[in-house]
Amino acid sequence: MNAVTRPEEPAQGGAGRIPQKAERGSLDARLLRRLLASVGNPPIEFVLAWTGERVSAPSIAPRASVRIADRSTLLGIVSDPQLRFGDAYTDGRVELDGDLIEFLKMIYRASAGAGGESIAHRMAGLLHRRRRNTLAGSRDNIHRHYDLGNDFYSLWLGPTMAYTCAYYPRSDATLEAAQIAKMDHVCRKLRLTANDSVVEAGCGWGSLALHMARHYGARVRAFNISREQIAYARGKARELGLEKRVEFIEDDYRNITGSHDVFVSVGMLEHVGRENYHELGRVVRAALGAEGRGLIHSIGRNRPAPLHPWIERRIFPGAYAPSLGEMMQIFEPFRLSVLDVENIRLHYARTLRHWLERYERAVDAVRSKFDESLVRMWRMYLAGSAAAFETGTLQLFQVLFTTDENNQIPLTRGYMYPT
Amino acid sequence: MNAVTRPEEPAQGGAGRIPQKAERGSLDARLLRRLLASVGNPPIEFVLAWTGERVSAPSIAPRASVRIADRSTLLGIVSDPQLRFGDAYTDGRVELDGDLIEFLKMIYRASAGAGGESIAHRMAGLLHRRRRNTLAGSRDNIHRHYDLGNDFYSLWLGPTMAYTCAYYPRSDATLEAAQIAKMDHVCRKLRLTANDSVVEAGCGWGSLALHMARHYGARVRAFNISREQIAYARGKARELGLEKRVEFIEDDYRNITGSHDVFVSVGMLEHVGRENYHELGRVVRAALGAEGRGLIHSIGRNRPAPLHPWIERRIFPGAYAPSLGEMMQIFEPFRLSVLDVENIRLHYARTLRHWLERYERAVDAVRSKFDESLVRMWRMYLAGSAAAFETGTLQLFQVLFTTDENNQIPLTRGYMYPT
Repeated sequence: MNAVTRPEEPAQGGAGRIPQKAERGSLDARLLRRLLASVGNPPIEFVLAWTGERVSAPSIAPRASVRIADRSTLLGIVSDPQLRFGDAYTDGRVELDGDLIEFLKMIYRASAGAGGESIAHRMAGLLHRRRRNTLAGSRDNIHRHYDLGNDFYSLWLGPTMAYTCAYYPRSDATLEAAQIAKMDHVCRKLRLTANDSVVEAGCGWGSLALHMARHYGARVRAFNISREQIAYARGKARELGLEKRVEFIEDDYRNITGSHDVFVSVGMLEHVGRENYHELGRVVRAALGAEGRGLIHSIGRNRPAPLHPWIERRIFPGAYAPSLGEMMQIFEPFRLSVLDVENIRLHYARTLRHWLERYERAVDAVRSKFDESLVRMWRMYLAGSAAAFETGTLQLFQVLFTTDENNQIPLTRGYMYPT
Repeated sequence: MNAVTRPEEPAQGGAGRIPQKAERGSLDARLLRRLLASVGNPPIEFVLAWTGERVSAPSIAPRASVRIADRSTLLGIVSDPQLRFGDAYTDGRVELDGDLIEFLKMIYRASAGAGGESIAHRMAGLLHRRRRNTLAGSRDNIHRHYDLGNDFYSLWLGPTMAYTCAYYPRSDATLEAAQIAKMDHVCRKLRLTANDSVVEAGCGWGSLALHMARHYGARVRAFNISREQIAYARGKARELGLEKRVEFIEDDYRNITGSHDVFVSVGMLEHVGRENYHELGRVVRAALGAEGRGLIHSIGRNRPAPLHPWIERRIFPGAYAPSLGEMMQIFEPFRLSVLDVENIRLHYARTLRHWLERYERAVDAVRSKFDESLVRMWRMYLAGSAAAFETGTLQLFQVLFTTDENNQIPLTRGYMYPT
């Protein structure tokens, strides 16, 4: 979806255009056609429930249909499509006929083709202030998302409880195999050994920290500010008899102390906020010894742009996905040297499709805990994220780095791909 | 070497220091000690030929010795060490006792430890304007370096005539094997096939273009503004019967036209200049079809900094090695998506050591064509570059990218590492 199109302004690309016959109709229809034009005329059709009218872009055969329940919903969507479409879907005032992911991909693709996405995002960025990631702000932002309950997440994340992009060594790998392969891919990139001390920033439910200790013998200090996640991770460490090798610390990454062989952070950078990249870089450099290695895994963008406003407001308060250029603000001021960057966005599309499948299978259990609006909101979030990765709207970067004086670097990357 | 240290200012770290006995001596000695302090006190000793005096940093056992021929040379070095040390070496007014690469590494390492390098470079950047890379400026800059004569380069580049970082699949690979492996590494990353049309920007003596046609069956249009290199490359194409598959075009990358499957540029970006990255990005995007792939291979830095002033003035006029963040200015504005970055700086150190070995073996032949100052200048350039890559002062980035709507991306990078 795209920016506000004010009724008195001609729609993008429409200045001086002669209205065609098909474009006539009600005021509602004209407003929707302007909206469609502003997002590049995707092949979708709106059905207005209160009149039965069907509206699509001129000369485009619709491939999906959206039913809008009432006029006030329509006006909301037209005035702020990026935020209000998702909200209307959540509230059940918008219904789709067809596959949700494919529908959202059509919008992303048309929108990117119209060059609208970045303008819309920039406007959205101006229109509202992102929630700040101060120490207290971060705690609140993280609590809102991650403390929905471990039971809720376990319904669709599967037994690893890994809530980040998996890595599929083969296209037919299961979600669980791919999550374990992701952990091994990260450990191999870091050349992890039993002699290594690791600090992890943002450890989720602890799966990577425990994997590093269990399968590589490393000692790990893992930081997280989500109380529920830390409690779960400590329980798992006890269950596996790994309490002596893995310490789960309920604290902010900014409070990391000590010198380590390895710094790792998988899926935390999205919550750090651009304004804190310099501070993160300082923390990373201070946490590493002279031959220290590190890896940051994060959702990213091909160019700087705010996160989709609906996602940032309703799902991930305070979140931001950086471009690779923006990520360099972490490394460049602090004598860190980037060794390797891998973009695995299609793996996240696959991961999200797997999560959504499990979510739908478990939807009755979700319904028994939460009301229907959460059920629908979460579906929109998972489907929208899959669509964003499949269309290249979002990227997933793994950045491997070391201190800039370290010459203990393998000649080739063959070590990442054991036969 | 480091920035100008003005005599009236105390040396870095020296404010309020009580002079020790060892620091007394001539004015010359005091000036040199200030210079040593400003570059982090490397373990080197100066021998003043006109008095026999030996000067090193206090409490540091020297591991290399530098003989300065006369007082005016000393004053030149003290006033502008970054430029004048290399010049004095070229003119034979400075002689070293010990290994040149190891000596230069000591300076780079001490200097980086003192945090001096970037300050010095920034100052150097202010003090002189880099030579501009306009269409005419680029032609002149390139002519100065690359048109020294194909015979000269063939003395030490070896039969591939590849004048860029090689890729050593094994540490005992020969230079020639490593240059061929680099070409294959690039072709594999690009998933080159016989159906592909390639445009190459900055093709040197044509080795990669010819390799792509000969071993992968691709059609290649290769651009270069060095007349001597183009003439050589065309001769090679005729020799190999590849004139129909490879077209060598004596023109600037800014004049590339047409749509291709692949864009490749190995070792040209250093000559493009930051001010032209936006234009280069526009050219790259315009040169690629919807599923186009591309690779840019360039010397880089861990953080933005001008090239060493001596290198930029005497060896590569107009050159600049970007940080990864700066390189993103090529891709981010133009709907290009970075898939993979590999930093192979240690391969360039190895390549330069191989070139220097061959250069020294062929030095009598060089002497028969050029005067002694060119012989020495080139030695300083090759040794200094090896030292810069070994100390992490310079990096070598290969950046693989595609158009941002392309989903034809292999799931893993296994295809880059055939067994």
